Amino acid sequence: MTRKFNFCAGPAALPDPVLERARDELLDYQGHGLSVMEMSHRSGAFAEIAARAERDLRALLAVPDNYRVLFMQGGASSQFAMVPYNLLGTGGTPNYLYTGIWGKKAVAEARHLAGAHVAASSEANGFTAVPRPEDIVLSSDAAYLHYTANETIGGLAFDYIPEVGDVPLVCDMSSSILSGPLDVSRFGVIYAGAQKNIGPAGLTLVIVRDDLLERALPNTPTMFNYRVMAENGSMFNTPPTYAWYLAGLVFDWLRHDMGGLEAMDRLNARKSEKLYAAIDASDFYSSPIAMPNRSRMNVPFVLADASLNDAFLNDAEAAGLLNLKGHRSVGGMRASLYNAVPEAAVDVLVDFMREFERRHG
Amino acid sequence: MTRKFNFCAGPAALPDPVLERARDELLDYQGHGLSVMEMSHRSGAFAEIAARAERDLRALLAVPDNYRVLFMQGGASSQFAMVPYNLLGTGGTPNYLYTGIWGKKAVAEARHLAGAHVAASSEANGFTAVPRPEDIVLSSDAAYLHYTANETIGGLAFDYIPEVGDVPLVCDMSSSILSGPLDVSRFGVIYAGAQKNIGPAGLTLVIVRDDLLERALPNTPTMFNYRVMAENGSMFNTPPTYAWYLAGLVFDWLRHDMGGLEAMDRLNARKSEKLYAAIDASDFYSSPIAMPNRSRMNVPFVLADASLNDAFLNDAEAAGLLNLKGHRSVGGMRASLYNAVPEAAVDVLVDFMREFERRHG
Repeated sequence: MTRKFNFCAGPAALPDPVLERARDELLDYQGHGLSVMEMSHRSGAFAEIAARAERDLRALLAVPDNYRVLFMQGGASSQFAMVPYNLLGTGGTPNYLYTGIWGKKAVAEARHLAGAHVAASSEANGFTAVPRPEDIVLSSDAAYLHYTANETIGGLAFDYIPEVGDVPLVCDMSSSILSGPLDVSRFGVIYAGAQKNIGPAGLTLVIVRDDLLERALPNTPTMFNYRVMAENGSMFNTPPTYAWYLAGLVFDWLRHDMGGLEAMDRLNARKSEKLYAAIDASDFYSSPIAMPNRSRMNVPFVLADASLNDAFLNDAEAAGLLNLKGHRSVGGMRASLYNAVPEAAVDVLVDFMREFERRHG
Repeated sequence: MTRKFNFCAGPAALPDPVLERARDELLDYQGHGLSVMEMSHRSGAFAEIAARAERDLRALLAVPDNYRVLFMQGGASSQFAMVPYNLLGTGGTPNYLYTGIWGKKAVAEARHLAGAHVAASSEANGFTAVPRPEDIVLSSDAAYLHYTANETIGGLAFDYIPEVGDVPLVCDMSSSILSGPLDVSRFGVIYAGAQKNIGPAGLTLVIVRDDLLERALPNTPTMFNYRVMAENGSMFNTPPTYAWYLAGLVFDWLRHDMGGLEAMDRLNARKSEKLYAAIDASDFYSSPIAMPNRSRMNVPFVLADASLNDAFLNDAEAAGLLNLKGHRSVGGMRASLYNAVPEAAVDVLVDFMREFERRHG
C-alpha cells in the first residue's frame, strides 16, 4: 500500500490517522461486535458517537449556545433550496453575493423557488476579486444575505465577513470551514458539504441560530426543515451514520492531534503561502486571483504555455501528485490544500513544479 | 474481534465479505494510492465503481431498459416529498395504501404538499393484514398509487402487486428490495433507503420509468428532480460516493457470491420459515400478523408474559444476538432477517428462544 498526495477539490483527502482508525474499527467497533455502519442510529453506541462529534465541533468553532448544529444530507446543492425554504416564511427578498459558480447556482435555485436580488457581483472583474464592502447594496426588504466564503472552482475567497446589521447572514463554507477560527456569532446560517474539510461526501453540516428556526415557508418539505431536524437531533429519519462517525473522527483529529483551529490556521497559511510564492516567483506559472482574495484551500494556477498542461498532469501523477487538473469550466491547474493535505505534499508539489519548469521553461 | 449476530431493522447487518473488502481497500483502493472516499466523483476510477454498481443492480433485478436507476440521498423520508413533486406536474390526486407507520408518513408528506386520497387502509384490522385487491378504491383522477411493500416496523408485507392499469404504481421497497426477484415492469417508481438490504445509511435507490421523468411540478427543488438526476447520472452534485461503492460491493456479493435473487429468495424463505415455525410452535411466543402478510424481512413477535421482555433482551445480547427489541411504537420483539443476516443467525436465535422458554415457560 502506498498513499499518494491527493490535491482533489472534493471528495478530498482525509487524514491518514482517521482512515487507519476507521479501517481498524470497520468490522467491530470497540468490541460491540458490529460495524458502525450496522448500528441503529437510536443505539447507545451511536448516540455517543453522534454527541461526541457535535461536542468536538462546537469546541473547535466555539459555537455559541444559541446555535444548533445539524447533520444533514444532500450537499450544498440541497442547501441552495433549503435556505430560502427555511428563511422566507416571514417574507422579504433573498439577497446574494455572486462571486463564482457556486454562488451562481445558489442564486439560480433561489430564483427557481422565490426570486432573488444580487447585492453585488464579481462578474465585472472576471471573478478574480470579491466585491468590496461598500459595493454591497441590499434590497430594502432583504430576508437574508447569502454568500460563498470560498469559491472552490475559482479559488476566490472573502477576506472579510460582510456587515449586514440585523439581516441574517448565510454562508456556504463548504470548502473553507474548519480551516481556521471563525466568529460564528456573525452568521445566521452556516452550511458546508462534508467532502472537503469534514469527512466523506453524503453529509452536510448546518449551523443555524435558533431564532431563525421559526421562519420556514409552510410548504417546506419536512426533510428540508431545519426546525424539524433540530427538534429531532438530526434524526427525524435515519441519518448518514457512517459519514457522521467519520466526521467525528476528523473533528477529534483536529482538536486533539492537530491542536485546534488556530494551529490549523497557521499550517494552512504556511502551506498556501509556499505554493503561491512558487507561482509568483516564476513567469512559467501564474495565478489570476487578486492577492487579498486568494484562497488558501483551492489554489488555481495556469501554465504560460497551455500546450504543456497534459505533460504537467501526467508527470505529476507519475510523481504521486494526484488530481491537479483544474475544473473543466475554468481549465488550468488547481491544487486543493484542505486540512488533511500535509505540508509535505506542498513541498513535494513545489519541488515538482520547479523541476518541471526547469525541464520545459 | 468477534462479530455478533445483528438483527437490527436498519441501519442493518452488512455481509462480512463486503466489510472485509472495504476494510482491506480503505486506505488504498486497488493501488490508486487513495481511499474511495477521497476520490473525485468525476474520476475514471469512481466512474467505473458507479457504473459497475448500476450494472450489477440492473442484472440482479432485470431492470428493463426504459427504467433509470438513480443513486440519491435523503432516505425514504425524502422520497415521500419527491414522489408528489415528480409526479403531480400533469395534475391528479396522489393515492396511497395505508398499511403502517411508513405509509402513514408518506401520506402525511403528500398532504403537506398537495393533498392525498387513501385508497385502502389496514387501520381496521390493527395493521395485521394488508387490504385485499378488491378493497382498493382509487380516486377517479389518481396521479399514482403509492404503497409500502414491507412495513419495517409492523412486519406487514404485501403478498401481491396491486393491479392499477395505467396509473403509475409507486412502491417504497426500503426493507424488502433485493430479497427476491421482482417484476420491475409493474412499477412506475420504486425507491428504497439503502440501510437495510443495499448498504450504509445515506444512500437512496430510485428506479423510475423514463416516461415519468416529464411530470415534475415546476417548483420542484432541483435536488428533488428525478429528471435532473437522470440526466446527470446521479451526479448533479457530489453523490455519497462511499455509500455508492459499498452498495456496489453488496450487489457484487449478491450476484456473484450468493447466486442472485432466486437463490436469495429461497434462503430468505428458509430463514423466515424457521423463525415463524418456532414462534407458532409455542404459546410462549406469538406473531400478530396474518399468515399471508408475514414479512420475511422483519419478524415481530411478542412474549406472552411481557414482564420477561427485559430478561429476554439481556440474555439474547449476552448470547451475541443483538438488536431484537421491537420498535418503541409497537413494543415486543423484532428480528430483522435481511440478506446479510446468515441462516446460522436464525438457527442460533431459534435455539436461544427455545432455551429461554424452557427456563421461563
